[in-house]
Amino acid sequence: MNKILIFGHKNPDTDSICSALIMEQYDKKLGCDVEAVRLGDINKETVYVLEYLHIEAPRLIESVEEGQEVVLVDHNEFPQSVNNIENAKITAVVDHHRICDFKTADPLYYRAEPVGSTATVLYKKFKESDMEISKEIATLMVSAIISDTLLFKSPTCTSEDVEIANKLALIAGIDMQEYGLNLLKAGTDLSDVSEEKLINLDAKEVMLGNIKAVIAQVNTASIPDMMTRKEKIEQEIKKAIKDRNLDLFLFAITDIINSNSQAIVLGNKADIVSGAYHVTLENNTVFLEGVVSRKKQIIPVLTEASKK
Amino acid sequence: MNKILIFGHKNPDTDSICSALIMEQYDKKLGCDVEAVRLGDINKETVYVLEYLHIEAPRLIESVEEGQEVVLVDHNEFPQSVNNIENAKITAVVDHHRICDFKTADPLYYRAEPVGSTATVLYKKFKESDMEISKEIATLMVSAIISDTLLFKSPTCTSEDVEIANKLALIAGIDMQEYGLNLLKAGTDLSDVSEEKLINLDAKEVMLGNIKAVIAQVNTASIPDMMTRKEKIEQEIKKAIKDRNLDLFLFAITDIINSNSQAIVLGNKADIVSGAYHVTLENNTVFLEGVVSRKKQIIPVLTEASKK
Repeated sequence: MNKILIFGHKNPDTDSICSALIMEQYDKKLGCDVEAVRLGDINKETVYVLEYLHIEAPRLIESVEEGQEVVLVDHNEFPQSVNNIENAKITAVVDHHRICDFKTADPLYYRAEPVGSTATVLYKKFKESDMEISKEIATLMVSAIISDTLLFKSPTCTSEDVEIANKLALIAGIDMQEYGLNLLKAGTDLSDVSEEKLINLDAKEVMLGNIKAVIAQVNTASIPDMMTRKEKIEQEIKKAIKDRNLDLFLFAITDIINSNSQAIVLGNKADIVSGAYHVTLENNTVFLEGVVSRKKQIIPVLTEASKK
Repeated sequence: MNKILIFGHKNPDTDSICSALIMEQYDKKLGCDVEAVRLGDINKETVYVLEYLHIEAPRLIESVEEGQEVVLVDHNEFPQSVNNIENAKITAVVDHHRICDFKTADPLYYRAEPVGSTATVLYKKFKESDMEISKEIATLMVSAIISDTLLFKSPTCTSEDVEIANKLALIAGIDMQEYGLNLLKAGTDLSDVSEEKLINLDAKEVMLGNIKAVIAQVNTASIPDMMTRKEKIEQEIKKAIKDRNLDLFLFAITDIINSNSQAIVLGNKADIVSGAYHVTLENNTVFLEGVVSRKKQIIPVLTEASKK
């Protein structure tokens, strides 16, 4: 039998890559034959973590064979998962997102909690199993928490995330503020990323009711800098909408310093965004005050709006 | 705000009722305002447990209001859940079944494991939270495990279920064999249950691919005794198929002593059962050697067959 493959979502972020690596170590300690893999390019923020730890990125895979045993971390929705996931055998999921478009033929291990990162849930699994958390694992975990909670500023961040991150920072031997800001800033340098890649860097395809949408997000230290690329970004979004037959594409440019987002919105269902946030789109763009979390402040708001 | 309601599936079995009561105590210890309720009549096996403990059955509810916060135990599929579940806010799920037809708008707590009963997962939650397991809770837990695993004979039973049940039996102060057989036998006395009720006693509506099916199951100490009621059972099944627009109704009569089942199968898709088990239906009935678990030996087998 092939190894069990462990992976996060397509367009992997730091939580997806780190959680796959953490879960791999967890399962190996239990004697399972597993391999962490990834479904896309490593972003610069994650590169920062891997270089800091001097470890290799997981192997890239494109799809899985029928019957392949897999463990999903940091996602569950099939459109965000590996190609041919419908025909894989999902033995476990560890996640912190809503559940949607997910189904199995057999019972499985499923552990999700409404916390800031998958790594937070994995920390609890290590503790419950009385497993030692090494310096490397602690660094992977705290990096994932910092990344997903924007250094505790995101509304998805819970007191549990903060408490656990503080414990992990001690084991990892890092200064939270210094390491955290360096990590987040590493992710905002997108100058050498083409607009085509930019809109897919951290893009999630979701069904909002019957609306086929992509919600993409990039972090920045300066919204105006990113907006100088608006024209080319729009061209790429229009192409994506046509190629993938989308009803809506929302590209959120999130200011990690001031905790706001500027969104570029296109598609025949773009008007649901105006309705959802009681704002008017001007030149396909809108400023979303205080919005930094796709999961908590965009997807549920648009899902609700899609019902009307 | 209303209390958070905790409930198992429709046509509740012992695991569904006991797990709701256990989860209620767990959440109350955490300071949550919760109430265990039920979605249907209590069966005789569960009555045995409640009378043994001198406790009341949870309150019966028919549906929930929009926005009602709920915790699901022992199920996740919406067709098996409370009416209007689509518009409730599901805050947590503790289960041991496959996941299907389940979705939420927001992240939630979800804990499922491929073990013999939901009570087994709840035992682990108590242990992880360092919560004391009282004699009453231990009795509820061990009863649910015995019931769902048919006193450890079901293929769904894992070594973890056995190990945990043995620990619980000590706290509960019961003799496992004696208590267990009395519990299971209490559930097989169906002489005063009408055929109309019999086919709905432990019936689960499931989608097998595009096939709308009901898989019902009763436990018995004698298949021939139950088969004397075949004609009337078939009449009621035909009525259910018509009323509920079903493609398939499988009624499994499970011999808890010898671990086999006799199935009565009706509906325009009845032929998938012959194909799935390589048997021939005679007079709408078939003997399924060694089959005792709907979850492990019926639903996945028919799901697989439905793809062909």
